[in-house]
Amino acid sequence: MVLVEAPERTGEERNAAESVVAALAARFGNRLATARSVREQHGNTTTWIENQPPDAVVFAQATEDVQEVVRLCAKHRVPVIAFGTGTSLEGQVNAPRGGICLDFRDMNRVLEVHAEDLDCVIEPGVTRKQLNEYLRDRGLFFPIDPGADASLGGMAATRASGTNAVRYGTMKDNVLALKAVLANGEVVTTARRAKKSSAGYDLTRLIVGSEGTLGIITELTLKLSGIPEAISSGICPFPSVEAACNATILAIQSGIPVARIELLDALQVRASNNYSKLDLPETPMLLLEFHGSQASVAEQSERFGEIARDLGGGPFDWATRAEDRTRLWQARHDAYWAQCALRPGARALASDVCVPISRLAECVTETQRDIAASGLLGPIVGHVGDGNFHVGVLVDLNDRDEVVRVEAFLERLVDRALAMDGTCTGEHGVGQGKMKYLKAEHGETALDAMRAIKRALDPLDILNPGKIVSL
Amino acid sequence: MVLVEAPERTGEERNAAESVVAALAARFGNRLATARSVREQHGNTTTWIENQPPDAVVFAQATEDVQEVVRLCAKHRVPVIAFGTGTSLEGQVNAPRGGICLDFRDMNRVLEVHAEDLDCVIEPGVTRKQLNEYLRDRGLFFPIDPGADASLGGMAATRASGTNAVRYGTMKDNVLALKAVLANGEVVTTARRAKKSSAGYDLTRLIVGSEGTLGIITELTLKLSGIPEAISSGICPFPSVEAACNATILAIQSGIPVARIELLDALQVRASNNYSKLDLPETPMLLLEFHGSQASVAEQSERFGEIARDLGGGPFDWATRAEDRTRLWQARHDAYWAQCALRPGARALASDVCVPISRLAECVTETQRDIAASGLLGPIVGHVGDGNFHVGVLVDLNDRDEVVRVEAFLERLVDRALAMDGTCTGEHGVGQGKMKYLKAEHGETALDAMRAIKRALDPLDILNPGKIVSL
Repeated sequence: MVLVEAPERTGEERNAAESVVAALAARFGNRLATARSVREQHGNTTTWIENQPPDAVVFAQATEDVQEVVRLCAKHRVPVIAFGTGTSLEGQVNAPRGGICLDFRDMNRVLEVHAEDLDCVIEPGVTRKQLNEYLRDRGLFFPIDPGADASLGGMAATRASGTNAVRYGTMKDNVLALKAVLANGEVVTTARRAKKSSAGYDLTRLIVGSEGTLGIITELTLKLSGIPEAISSGICPFPSVEAACNATILAIQSGIPVARIELLDALQVRASNNYSKLDLPETPMLLLEFHGSQASVAEQSERFGEIARDLGGGPFDWATRAEDRTRLWQARHDAYWAQCALRPGARALASDVCVPISRLAECVTETQRDIAASGLLGPIVGHVGDGNFHVGVLVDLNDRDEVVRVEAFLERLVDRALAMDGTCTGEHGVGQGKMKYLKAEHGETALDAMRAIKRALDPLDILNPGKIVSL
Repeated sequence: MVLVEAPERTGEERNAAESVVAALAARFGNRLATARSVREQHGNTTTWIENQPPDAVVFAQATEDVQEVVRLCAKHRVPVIAFGTGTSLEGQVNAPRGGICLDFRDMNRVLEVHAEDLDCVIEPGVTRKQLNEYLRDRGLFFPIDPGADASLGGMAATRASGTNAVRYGTMKDNVLALKAVLANGEVVTTARRAKKSSAGYDLTRLIVGSEGTLGIITELTLKLSGIPEAISSGICPFPSVEAACNATILAIQSGIPVARIELLDALQVRASNNYSKLDLPETPMLLLEFHGSQASVAEQSERFGEIARDLGGGPFDWATRAEDRTRLWQARHDAYWAQCALRPGARALASDVCVPISRLAECVTETQRDIAASGLLGPIVGHVGDGNFHVGVLVDLNDRDEVVRVEAFLERLVDRALAMDGTCTGEHGVGQGKMKYLKAEHGETALDAMRAIKRALDPLDILNPGKIVSL
């Protein structure tokens, strides 16, 4: 476990937390949990950052519950941490100073679907798969697909994206409006259902990606897309990462509206071959998906095949049959488990960076060299249309020396991305794990502005303190 | 002229402004202008809001100039107002409390074009047409097209959009990063060139649409698009506004990636027939444009034609020849002049609202009825794919009674849009003209949050005071 510095709580802080827990117990009965196991499940569980459990968990059922908890916590200056499915990767749900975790499991209703407007209104605990199940019969879908079946409240809070982002954007592009409880307990509605507006500051996009530090999301209005008439998927080997990246650049430049374009490096292909019983050549590989009419996906596939061939790649093998598509994307979605299986007993640590696409090949290749030179094993998968990639570096947490080498490697990974005009995280967010990089990425003036905004909206620093920026 | 309440400046305020102007004159020489005519050109000139000129105009040449002006103004608590081309429609560049106008005319260089990354870095005074001229030979374009040949700094500041927004989004979707001078004179860089990021609060989208009240934009990194291989345009009459709106909804629902879909109501068609020497049937009309491959635009056009026919519209007349396209879109772009020509001597006041597309037909139809019942003339054009429309209501500014009727009509227009879950402005922004509607649209909590953010970033209220929110 990697420790995140958390100052010992004062006696006063502990007393305040105890008062709040007692008051909440009286109010919420069995919707409040204080059992150690439940609290630990609500701290960080998905990476190597240590688990820092909250003092209690409240299972909210309505916006009013959230307001009550926030008001009580504000009165006693006790932290409040919003929790969706706990699948964030940078310690976003940890409670380094204790406090109350608000679990949105029970706020999981789809409230409205407006098919003509291509939008819906939901509670924050609805997960992306649940929403898509709900929408399927209406011919609609919500395109953002991080690896986990995350809650949509959490996805908005961390500005998540996934494999469809190259065509459909990220959460910032697909949240039309939010309802959120602010640090003073008031409910803010950030926008109307109109598709665009110039009416004042963009509170929607200020809260998207703020990881529960500026407000707690209790309702979301999301943009939806029509399920395409036709979908075609394909897989294409390349002689090098560079050739695969160049094919991606050309495809996008020439206006092929690719829906998904994912890179697997040779090591990831080996891992996926073993784990998903595939028989792919162990060379850099692109997985693609095209959405459109029958004629349009056929044309897109053919044009991509030509681009690949010109760059020494191919053959581009494409299939529009649903079962072939499923097999292919299942292997992509199982990339993490395939990584873990490469070295039983080790854990794959998912870290992500994002660079301008023109620098991607260079960034991935240098990273591969660094992994090798560090004596590590780290398959790479990338949302290559966005310049975003993930290294699943394998680490034995009991091997202190290896942990140190992995930490140093991750720092170099971020430094490399920043040197190429990139960002320390394309989609996982900051949480606790990436706070230390924000100054290098944004500079002191931007951090000061972020802190000023945080102080303005949460002067007591009760909303998920110790994440993104410290006051 | 419609008066905007501006408290008389105190003697102290006037003295402070005089000191600043004297210091700036010494520093900037003939790059400072105080002539009345120049100052008036830099106040509001494009709507009926009264002209409120600044005390002086500085023609900035570099970010450092802006920092100097802001620091000096901060020291003396004198307002600073950023100015692009002065084409904003709600009094955004007015100086109700005097102060220094920063004109970005001379900061008009395209600094970098990254063709592989589909982005560019520019100074804020570059206009949209200038940028597209510059990009044309590279096969790239910037899609956002408000009516005027506005500066891109101003377009970002007002969160502008235009006819391409249905496919390419608005300024919020096409600004990757900004450099801005904050109220304390420091320069903030809001993001890197990576296409997506989850690294902290979204300062980019906080500044986009903030109309110079949170920071003064001195550099922009913009997303570009490849010029499509083929473009096809068409025009399609409908028996009613409702049928035209329903065709739009169906086209979008069925996944036709329409690039432009513009509504002209029957009165606008009449105005355009007269002004642009066309011979169109005087009935609601959709103008469309499709972007893609040759095969894809042909398919899109055919599919739209079928949808139109099913709804009693058509025939859909489409043309891919550049000169036919130009004639058609020229008429659309001349809509404003066509409106003015309907009633010589009167002025067309452009106001915009935006509603969920399912409510658009109802909103437009009720608005037409209201116009008629008010004894006014007001052609309507709409970016109908976004639910956004403009009424160009004609007013004789010397007719006091008519001015009063128009004001009342505009209030009802906003009330109507808000009642349909819409916004008081889809793309023109707030400025002075729409401040009074923000409370009804967003509620007091959201306005308080906006004010808290404004106070946090501009505690002395020197950046474009009296716009969006009052402290």
